[in-house]
Amino acid sequence: HSMDLTNKNIIFVAGLGGIGLDTSRELVKRSPKNLVILDRVDNPVAVAELKAMNPKVTVTYYPYDVTVPVVETVKLLKTIFAKVKTVDVLINGAGILDDHQIERTIAINFTGLVNTTTAMMEFWDKRKGGPGGVVVNICSVTGFNAIYQVPVYSASKAAVVSFTMSMAKLAHITGVTAFSVNPGITKTTLVHKFNSWLDVEPRVAELLLEHPTQTTQQCAQNFVKAIEANKNGAVWKLDLGRLDLVEWTKHWDSGI
Amino acid sequence: HSMDLTNKNIIFVAGLGGIGLDTSRELVKRSPKNLVILDRVDNPVAVAELKAMNPKVTVTYYPYDVTVPVVETVKLLKTIFAKVKTVDVLINGAGILDDHQIERTIAINFTGLVNTTTAMMEFWDKRKGGPGGVVVNICSVTGFNAIYQVPVYSASKAAVVSFTMSMAKLAHITGVTAFSVNPGITKTTLVHKFNSWLDVEPRVAELLLEHPTQTTQQCAQNFVKAIEANKNGAVWKLDLGRLDLVEWTKHWDSGI
Repeated sequence: HSMDLTNKNIIFVAGLGGIGLDTSRELVKRSPKNLVILDRVDNPVAVAELKAMNPKVTVTYYPYDVTVPVVETVKLLKTIFAKVKTVDVLINGAGILDDHQIERTIAINFTGLVNTTTAMMEFWDKRKGGPGGVVVNICSVTGFNAIYQVPVYSASKAAVVSFTMSMAKLAHITGVTAFSVNPGITKTTLVHKFNSWLDVEPRVAELLLEHPTQTTQQCAQNFVKAIEANKNGAVWKLDLGRLDLVEWTKHWDSGI
Repeated sequence: HSMDLTNKNIIFVAGLGGIGLDTSRELVKRSPKNLVILDRVDNPVAVAELKAMNPKVTVTYYPYDVTVPVVETVKLLKTIFAKVKTVDVLINGAGILDDHQIERTIAINFTGLVNTTTAMMEFWDKRKGGPGGVVVNICSVTGFNAIYQVPVYSASKAAVVSFTMSMAKLAHITGVTAFSVNPGITKTTLVHKFNSWLDVEPRVAELLLEHPTQTTQQCAQNFVKAIEANKNGAVWKLDLGRLDLVEWTKHWDSGI
């Protein structure tokens, strides 16, 4: 059940981001064969650092914007598969926090994650002869209970928590397992300063940071522990330096 | 606390839809002053029927597509406010169920609801001198626990459940209260036949309808009861002919 990352091939969307970069560092320590980082903006210094950390690991970077249509993502993945042959893990980590930008928040945090995953299914779906794989979605504790001053961001995170739970239940059909990693407030540039919806609370970032938080390093260590636990359907809470399983409440059951 | 709908002005987005039309019929029985129906497609027969039902009520129809930009919605609302002067209740009911259409599902079920509500805040927000108002969002029990064969639809509904709970918590700032009405499987054309994500379950509609369901009439009656209860922050489950409050689980607290 648990996963040894040694020699594995990992695609990490937003692997240079706030939580992403420290998680990439932790992943490189585990000696995967390939760490393929897709991110909107390059950070050559960070990529060079990751390459230098562990000579056993091939670290590559491709520019990728999660808001492109599925067919574009499929093209990029074809290029990547041609080089690495197989991919074991896809980590979806792209996200923005700015409730002035409703469409963009939804496009990146929700649609982008769904589309990237949908594109990956072309290669992984066992109904198409694929080998299956593991999807790790970086969602957020705000998907459980909102930061109500950023209702659009929080709602987009509720969406991806739900989507990930559904994917896990589809694993018997697709061969693709999934779990979500839900960080609490983590000291990144994302939460340093951000806009609330209709400016309902101009001080939302400051107020949040008056409460206990965690560092990106703490979050990254628990992130990789969650990947190694490799638990289909898990909803992991990564808050205040802890790693906990969330038991989702059943309010309704489709029966099917 | 509870609301008497007599003489009230109501805007109902998708008031001619599957659940919408029967809910419009129930609303008209309560003798509001105005029932303003916004819907993508006109249904002159249904509108005529609503008009004939109760001569005390002015029923009007405007074409409206929830995927238009906020500024377009603001324009339409200006026209409506010019006629009715005040609006007491906004009901957001636009939705599609088709997991082949990822972008469109998200645009209608999630972004459309957020944008329509955001446009309404221009007129209602007490920080702008507005009188406040009540937002009623038609979400879905699949926002609590997915129909995992339609993960995109279900996720879009999880998003609007979350958004609605946030709006309710912002009522002390905006003057606008909100609650969600979450139907279970209701016998509408929406659930008669629909596409699952990547065709994971071609028989999803049939399978669902093998289990107990409710009629649109049952749903509509409980819908109007929920509006009359007028409970800010409520998460109403309308399933199997029943009306129940859902207690949302606290997995995390922002502390602010």
